[in-house]
Amino acid sequence: MQNKITINDGLVCPIPKSEYEKVVMAHGGGGTLSNQLIQKMFLSQFDNEMLQQEHDGAIFKIGNQRFAFSTDSYVVNPIFFPGGDIGDLAVNGTVNDISMCGAKPLYISAGFIIEEGFEMDDLWRVVLSMKEAAKKAGVQIVTGDTKVVDHGKGDKIYINTAGIGVIPDEINISAENCSVGDKIIVSGRIAEHGVAIMSAREGLEFESQIKSDSAALNGLVENMFKVTNQIHVLRDPTRGGISSALNEIAQKSNLGMLIHQDTIPMTEQVKAACELLGLDPLYIANEGKLIAILPANNADTVLEEMRKHPLGKNSAIIGEIVNENPGTVIMETLIGSKRVVDMLSGEQLPRIC
Amino acid sequence: MQNKITINDGLVCPIPKSEYEKVVMAHGGGGTLSNQLIQKMFLSQFDNEMLQQEHDGAIFKIGNQRFAFSTDSYVVNPIFFPGGDIGDLAVNGTVNDISMCGAKPLYISAGFIIEEGFEMDDLWRVVLSMKEAAKKAGVQIVTGDTKVVDHGKGDKIYINTAGIGVIPDEINISAENCSVGDKIIVSGRIAEHGVAIMSAREGLEFESQIKSDSAALNGLVENMFKVTNQIHVLRDPTRGGISSALNEIAQKSNLGMLIHQDTIPMTEQVKAACELLGLDPLYIANEGKLIAILPANNADTVLEEMRKHPLGKNSAIIGEIVNENPGTVIMETLIGSKRVVDMLSGEQLPRIC
Repeated sequence: MQNKITINDGLVCPIPKSEYEKVVMAHGGGGTLSNQLIQKMFLSQFDNEMLQQEHDGAIFKIGNQRFAFSTDSYVVNPIFFPGGDIGDLAVNGTVNDISMCGAKPLYISAGFIIEEGFEMDDLWRVVLSMKEAAKKAGVQIVTGDTKVVDHGKGDKIYINTAGIGVIPDEINISAENCSVGDKIIVSGRIAEHGVAIMSAREGLEFESQIKSDSAALNGLVENMFKVTNQIHVLRDPTRGGISSALNEIAQKSNLGMLIHQDTIPMTEQVKAACELLGLDPLYIANEGKLIAILPANNADTVLEEMRKHPLGKNSAIIGEIVNENPGTVIMETLIGSKRVVDMLSGEQLPRIC
Repeated sequence: MQNKITINDGLVCPIPKSEYEKVVMAHGGGGTLSNQLIQKMFLSQFDNEMLQQEHDGAIFKIGNQRFAFSTDSYVVNPIFFPGGDIGDLAVNGTVNDISMCGAKPLYISAGFIIEEGFEMDDLWRVVLSMKEAAKKAGVQIVTGDTKVVDHGKGDKIYINTAGIGVIPDEINISAENCSVGDKIIVSGRIAEHGVAIMSAREGLEFESQIKSDSAALNGLVENMFKVTNQIHVLRDPTRGGISSALNEIAQKSNLGMLIHQDTIPMTEQVKAACELLGLDPLYIANEGKLIAILPANNADTVLEEMRKHPLGKNSAIIGEIVNENPGTVIMETLIGSKRVVDMLSGEQLPRIC
């Protein structure tokens, strides 16, 4: 049954009632359903070149200067977790989205939606944490907004940040730059943020051991660009993990990817926690890691530089861009077989960021 | 009893437990309590010159170009109301905040926090409404984010927008520019947004008659600047109404204001609704009105120009900047007496925008 209700301009809701009459958690999970919602609902209507890039942020030119502009809302639960809290996450997340456009982040906005009854001391902790994160990242929080909603119409605190940065002339980051032979680098051990949140939420014993990797990556990116301008793609694998990030790039570039399971950096604790929780680490959110795709002849130099930075010391080359299976990510597993790494289809980890 | 808990850096929560242990609705109401929360919690920590301006947006320079950057979250209830919905409100609100900095708004971000179970058709209506509002205002929605929260942890949909605009060289808007003798103009009939929302919420009979004034004011502002660059202050009197907006400017400029009740434009329906609801229209939100403060010798020319624009046709001079009572707004009432118009102290109208 097609949805026959027409609203405004005679435009029919592009998600038929037979599929989803109501929004479900997975529409915000960063996987296939999120993707469909964004494509059909938002991109189809807010139609413009910048949005179509489907980058972590919009890139536009004013005068002779290119800018990156990005936003994210944070609804993570719990708001305090090992390794961070919703405050530093909100600052780091937007700093990272801007950095992934090749831009130097400068200014951040902060919009708070606070639930009535939220502890003033907790708000204070969040504020101090944002202050500290902004200081570390070298950005300024320059404008903001505070709303309060009735008790039971929120969940402690939600924070939106938006940010703006400038892109140096010589830098050009886009999924469409990928070429066959390019190397894929990940900047460190994966899945720590997601596992830290899940452990905290479930009260698991890993809680004390596994910390979120929440961190601002602009310093690392800056160092990488000191070595070369020839970086084709940067992406921070947040919701949906490295699998969703790689799939998005593969689809956008219409090239294939081959990754090697044995090269993907991960701690033993995270591996164990994932097994216990029944989670695939490839789909788990990171908040202080990046993926870089760049020409093979630069890869070792950039890798070396990355490893000098505290946030990149476990960087590794995990794969390459290939001719085969365009739009698809294939993983060579530990036992030597190959399998398709799909985009996350449902909601693996709700409210992870 | 002082709050003795110290957190992080040894900084004590600046709002003592004896005052407010928890956040209350009025902390988001746009009045005195909001102001205190913002001052003590946010401005004290996110300390920088731009934030200290306490403008509707931040103003900064990159290269030789000045920019305005602003954000607002929208939590209005109900989300559909006479004259608009949360979608156009979210676009218009940020367009207006940027315009009030004297800037031409260009690009907008949209962050959605959707409650699980929200009707897909309602989301579609909101999206189409945002699209239409952006088109009317001549801005592009270039980047976004979608989060879904559990049923009962939100209220249908909250939308954050942030936006960026460029400020022409010759324009300089700041509360500190106010001078004694300056005229105060309001661009039309006040209190319509707030009364429309309250009527819709309470199911009052006015519902059909009183419509929100939600509109983008950048076109009107552009026309005003065609007449003169000598406009000292622009402000859109949203939460807290014209009273809060004028008080903020009076305090920031440390000058007095005298306004004349008989000159304030308002419809008979809004007057009647306010009487019935026990509301003071001076404290009620507007979403398509601006206050301009400018030299007396320009006031009539600018007023004339404003009245030519559909959104300014009921513009009026409602008062002037005076030497007496610095930091205070005084109103000459209909019966000729004078009274202080305070900043809204509590929460008159929760979730009005």
